[in-house]
Amino acid sequence: MSGNSFGKLFTVTTAGESHGPGLMAIVDGCPPGMPLTTADLQHDLDRRKPGTSRHTTQRQEADEVEILSGVFEGVTTGCPIGLLIRNTDQRSRDYSAIQDLFRPAHADYSYQHKYGVRDYRGGGRSSARETAMRVAAGAIAKKYLATKGIQIRGYMSQLGPITIPFQSWDEVHNNAFFSPNSGKVAELEAYMDQLRRDQDSVGAKITVIADGVMPGLGEPIFDRLDAELAHALMSINAVKGVEIGDGFACVAQRGTEHRDEMTPDGFLSNHAGGVLGGISSGQPIVAHIALKPTSSITVPGRTITASGEATDMITKGRHDPCVGIRATPIAEAMMAMVLMDHFLRQRGQNADVRVSVPVLKQL
Amino acid sequence: MSGNSFGKLFTVTTAGESHGPGLMAIVDGCPPGMPLTTADLQHDLDRRKPGTSRHTTQRQEADEVEILSGVFEGVTTGCPIGLLIRNTDQRSRDYSAIQDLFRPAHADYSYQHKYGVRDYRGGGRSSARETAMRVAAGAIAKKYLATKGIQIRGYMSQLGPITIPFQSWDEVHNNAFFSPNSGKVAELEAYMDQLRRDQDSVGAKITVIADGVMPGLGEPIFDRLDAELAHALMSINAVKGVEIGDGFACVAQRGTEHRDEMTPDGFLSNHAGGVLGGISSGQPIVAHIALKPTSSITVPGRTITASGEATDMITKGRHDPCVGIRATPIAEAMMAMVLMDHFLRQRGQNADVRVSVPVLKQL
Amino acid sequence: MSGNSFGKLFTVTTAGESHGPGLMAIVDGCPPGMPLTTADLQHDLDRRKPGTSRHTTQRQEADEVEILSGVFEGVTTGCPIGLLIRNTDQRSRDYSAIQDLFRPAHADYSYQHKYGVRDYRGGGRSSARETAMRVAAGAIAKKYLATKGIQIRGYMSQLGPITIPFQSWDEVHNNAFFSPNSGKVAELEAYMDQLRRDQDSVGAKITVIADGVMPGLGEPIFDRLDAELAHALMSINAVKGVEIGDGFACVAQRGTEHRDEMTPDGFLSNHAGGVLGGISSGQPIVAHIALKPTSSITVPGRTITASGEATDMITKGRHDPCVGIRATPIAEAMMAMVLMDHFLRQRGQNADVRVSVPVLKQL
Amino acid sequence: MSGNSFGKLFTVTTAGESHGPGLMAIVDGCPPGMPLTTADLQHDLDRRKPGTSRHTTQRQEADEVEILSGVFEGVTTGCPIGLLIRNTDQRSRDYSAIQDLFRPAHADYSYQHKYGVRDYRGGGRSSARETAMRVAAGAIAKKYLATKGIQIRGYMSQLGPITIPFQSWDEVHNNAFFSPNSGKVAELEAYMDQLRRDQDSVGAKITVIADGVMPGLGEPIFDRLDAELAHALMSINAVKGVEIGDGFACVAQRGTEHRDEMTPDGFLSNHAGGVLGGISSGQPIVAHIALKPTSSITVPGRTITASGEATDMITKGRHDPCVGIRATPIAEAMMAMVLMDHFLRQRGQNADVRVSVPVLKQL
Repeated sequence: MSGNSFGKLFTVTTAGESHGPGLMAIVDGCPPGMPLTTADLQHDLDRRKPGTSRHTTQRQEADEVEILSGVFEGVTTGCPIGLLIRNTDQRSRDYSAIQDLFRPAHADYSYQHKYGVRDYRGGGRSSARETAMRVAAGAIAKKYLATKGIQIRGYMSQLGPITIPFQSWDEVHNNAFFSPNSGKVAELEAYMDQLRRDQDSVGAKITVIADGVMPGLGEPIFDRLDAELAHALMSINAVKGVEIGDGFACVAQRGTEHRDEMTPDGFLSNHAGGVLGGISSGQPIVAHIALKPTSSITVPGRTITASGEATDMITKGRHDPCVGIRATPIAEAMMAMVLMDHFLRQRGQNADVRVSVPVLKQL
Repeated sequence: MSGNSFGKLFTVTTAGESHGPGLMAIVDGCPPGMPLTTADLQHDLDRRKPGTSRHTTQRQEADEVEILSGVFEGVTTGCPIGLLIRNTDQRSRDYSAIQDLFRPAHADYSYQHKYGVRDYRGGGRSSARETAMRVAAGAIAKKYLATKGIQIRGYMSQLGPITIPFQSWDEVHNNAFFSPNSGKVAELEAYMDQLRRDQDSVGAKITVIADGVMPGLGEPIFDRLDAELAHALMSINAVKGVEIGDGFACVAQRGTEHRDEMTPDGFLSNHAGGVLGGISSGQPIVAHIALKPTSSITVPGRTITASGEATDMITKGRHDPCVGIRATPIAEAMMAMVLMDHFLRQRGQNADVRVSVPVLKQL
Repeated sequence: MSGNSFGKLFTVTTAGESHGPGLMAIVDGCPPGMPLTTADLQHDLDRRKPGTSRHTTQRQEADEVEILSGVFEGVTTGCPIGLLIRNTDQRSRDYSAIQDLFRPAHADYSYQHKYGVRDYRGGGRSSARETAMRVAAGAIAKKYLATKGIQIRGYMSQLGPITIPFQSWDEVHNNAFFSPNSGKVAELEAYMDQLRRDQDSVGAKITVIADGVMPGLGEPIFDRLDAELAHALMSINAVKGVEIGDGFACVAQRGTEHRDEMTPDGFLSNHAGGVLGGISSGQPIVAHIALKPTSSITVPGRTITASGEATDMITKGRHDPCVGIRATPIAEAMMAMVLMDHFLRQRGQNADVRVSVPVLKQL
Repeated sequence: MSGNSFGKLFTVTTAGESHGPGLMAIVDGCPPGMPLTTADLQHDLDRRKPGTSRHTTQRQEADEVEILSGVFEGVTTGCPIGLLIRNTDQRSRDYSAIQDLFRPAHADYSYQHKYGVRDYRGGGRSSARETAMRVAAGAIAKKYLATKGIQIRGYMSQLGPITIPFQSWDEVHNNAFFSPNSGKVAELEAYMDQLRRDQDSVGAKITVIADGVMPGLGEPIFDRLDAELAHALMSINAVKGVEIGDGFACVAQRGTEHRDEMTPDGFLSNHAGGVLGGISSGQPIVAHIALKPTSSITVPGRTITASGEATDMITKGRHDPCVGIRATPIAEAMMAMVLMDHFLRQRGQNADVRVSVPVLKQL
């Protein structure tokens, strides 16, 4: 229940730093009877893994996950599932130069103020390395939700200034960007190469969509589904904004434009992004997240030392020029955790409910 | 702990519907020894109250709050504070016509699917009426945080297509829009009058800022301060997007632009919005929320009946053409709840911590 | 989630002191569609109410509960149910003499140390008055559980040195002691009358039994059903011990005696008290609680003043010479809350589970 | 928050079964800056370890714990501490004979009903094996609490019919029983040897005491310190009863006997066991637990098969004839977790409180 646990019935607790011995997660609340192997988790871990293209961090991690409990004869038992990933390629020497500095736009300064001490190697707990465990835990949720007809997929909808219109889900797997549009890939690659030459970084926007979600998920008023999704997605490193449906475009919309009218054949639009009154409506759940540009860049920047003196710094080591490129599987995992938790909560609270109104589909 | 409670140490639990006998809240975890009277709560309730200008809902509610427990001889005891507001002006007859319809873009359809039954009068629990209790509870948090030097204020930064540049905090109280810019008020009034004639509605963007927040608040990785703020703000009715700092503008920013460099005299910018690595940095915490246009408009729209047949509907009754106009105190209250909770959590976890690094201020 | 909330899916939050304006509760997570009126709650409140016999506190409280939300057209909506009981007979003047004393064996001393301030009137929040709200909330749970075939009843099994063997459930309602044995009532009355003449008090033991509980409730390892029952029951004022099944008699039992053997016709005994491995087995759930003698007695006792000086004190006012006499409905209510919460949790987690093993019954 | 997490600020989450690859724990909320090594944990793990005397289970487990995160340069960072113990001596073949039986008085039957599947090897998650992780996590709490002057120690106060009067704490470490009385050891050994020859088992009572606890810990009304201790202690396998202070002896006590009078020199007694009104009073916190006799005995017993047919069974394998012999370190660990959690909660909620009343000591 402290800050490293998420979810009320399907609870994910993680631990582990960038340069410690390993990462751990305990996934509690997965119903029993579901087949589960490490292969189910490895797929999404590999999608997230660094070192898979020239556009991402050059750290080579095997990211091989081990299941230590909660599975017997290949099937979940309902008991907590323990996951372990050993860190193997840490290169601690890269960070010794910065142990007395606060890297601008990193968590160093705020961690120092919160804890008084910090593991400075690679950002310690603040590093995106811990997201490997979220992806593994999210894969468990994804698998279960799939048995209920729910599918969660994401893609990059914008990289820096380049908007990427959706073309097809198949495209997403064909490039290193999670771009749903093949025609944009060359432009993205060129932009990234230039960015690397500039020693700079840029932000990104990721879109995550859940199809097949039954209406009724979400627990108003504080655990509304959209609020929980916002919590989950904003908890991802580097995320600075979350939208549901039309998001900030709603500000300038008129009520007559925004409302999703209903007919016996289904909804006529989905400006709401699948959530009405904090509860899923049966429409696809659509969320967008804004990721800030990576703080670890090699252009020098002004900062202070631990004793408060002015200094310049340059980040060395291995970094992502655009963290957005690896965020898609993490966003999918967080959405999966929320929907899993709320699926169980809705079932627990309201399994007695008899609904005589049909579920509308989207035209 | 079910969906109607928020916060781990400072826990707010609410109940109450639009047309029920009354609204209640239990505020648990306010430290003892703080002077508290209903006047402290009434101020913010009045700011939120309907019927205060021609631009807001014409429902006249006294919204007088009563404190039923947790205060003795004018001072908090540390025991839970019970709050009660009786509903007095409900006009239930306005809603009988719609008990067999699902109003488009309202919660009716999703509530029906979740619960099988719903209090259709005025939206029941899904109505913004319940936010009165959030404002009252948030006022308790605001008062305590003020004793720690923290001030939380909000304003409208955009109404429909009209951007409102910040001029001064004093302006915010001088008009019905919470506009921080006197020069814009006439334009906003004209726009709203036209909107009313059009029988339509529009969205809005609200900006909330917390000054004086010490560094160190937030509990990574899942209860990061920005994630909890996103949760709290997205839980407000009609909110469809949340940004921290530069939010979605970060997508197109370069790392060199985005990073807030540090000097011995302070930070040089605040693109991060006061949160680094999920922990407050000592900079002002800046959040923006996008509110969708009100679903209750009088232009007819297509929908279905409870038995699934096509029908048109018109909303009658008393409504806000722009809910954003009343959202500012609600957003302030939610931010206050989060900061209160995290102030206590940080104190509980880390009161032993000795920090030798100075707290930087913003230039 | 702070200390005044109990339960994860069925969450009860209470507020209110002995001499404040009133008591409140918010009951969150009751499934929708269940008929509910104040009469359902009043029955158990009346069983708990002071002033119903010469053997209990002479304070006369109407204890009339009002439902403020969560019920529409006589049926629960699934939204939080708000309850309110106004305090009407407080006689504050009885307590002014003790505002600078710490009554021995009361909470005064520890509350002062925890909060620095305290509402000394009648014990404030530490008074058993707040249990009225637990009983009201528990009545909601009892009603729902009854629809699932679960019945919860309690009785007094020992008063001071007098053991009360179980005779029949019908007897429990026929006397002021909740004694299940008519033959013992005269002895109990004589004992109590002597106690009153002695100006003293005595403890009691209450037994609570839940019949009809399906196997499978409880969430190992920390939220085992017996652990949650222990928590709930120990949270009742004056409780100093909790047993499940044979409890402390197990210490001297041999394994061959203790084990409840199983045959196709059912269990052969119930030493376990209905819980195996922290999960309900389908057998009656049997718990016993030990209540200490009331601290409020009129025999003088040594204590200290708020400034640390020695003094004698005598409690005046209206008190229970044996709090156990009113504890039965409170214990039933707490057991109901736990079973309700776990019924929903089990349904949420494991509704998919197919069990081919029959449910054994008790011979 | 699901059943395998305990504590609100100091949260312990565990996973792992008797015969799986290993046991894990994530300990979240330990303040930063505390020196911590595996040696700190190993001491208590060794006290709990099987195979240390002829009176306990003959399973030989190294029980070597590894710290995977949360510690940097020998000091806690405030980030979650991950613990891992590999299972090495499992002898799975011992259990294959019982996979289609329900061992009487074991969790088999209830687990099957809850989950539909179970890891039958050695009891799976229901085995006491998982308590190794509680002991490791509790050792972290113990160490921190010691820096605040709090010491937690336990001993066996009764084995079967043999009462063991307290002699000294030093004795506890000198024998295999955690007996605080050297004069009783020979009698205990003889009794145990006979029990083994009888192929039977017996229960035990353990007493745990916390000294040096400041007043003010506990969060009324539901998270009262005694209620949380009851929860924590009842969650230990085989526990069937919990007492605070005089416990069930209170039933027959008179108010004049029970109350702990106060003088300027301190309390005159401690019938309350250190908790008043659910809050620590500054007196030693005294709890007793009743452990039932082990269910795994070699005397045949009647039971049913998974298909409901009558059968006899005999447990083979390695077992404890008296689980109480190893429960002491587990009970200490659970008490430590509760006090740790409440120390942090009290500090978070009430660090502002100024108390002018002296802390009484016990005569």
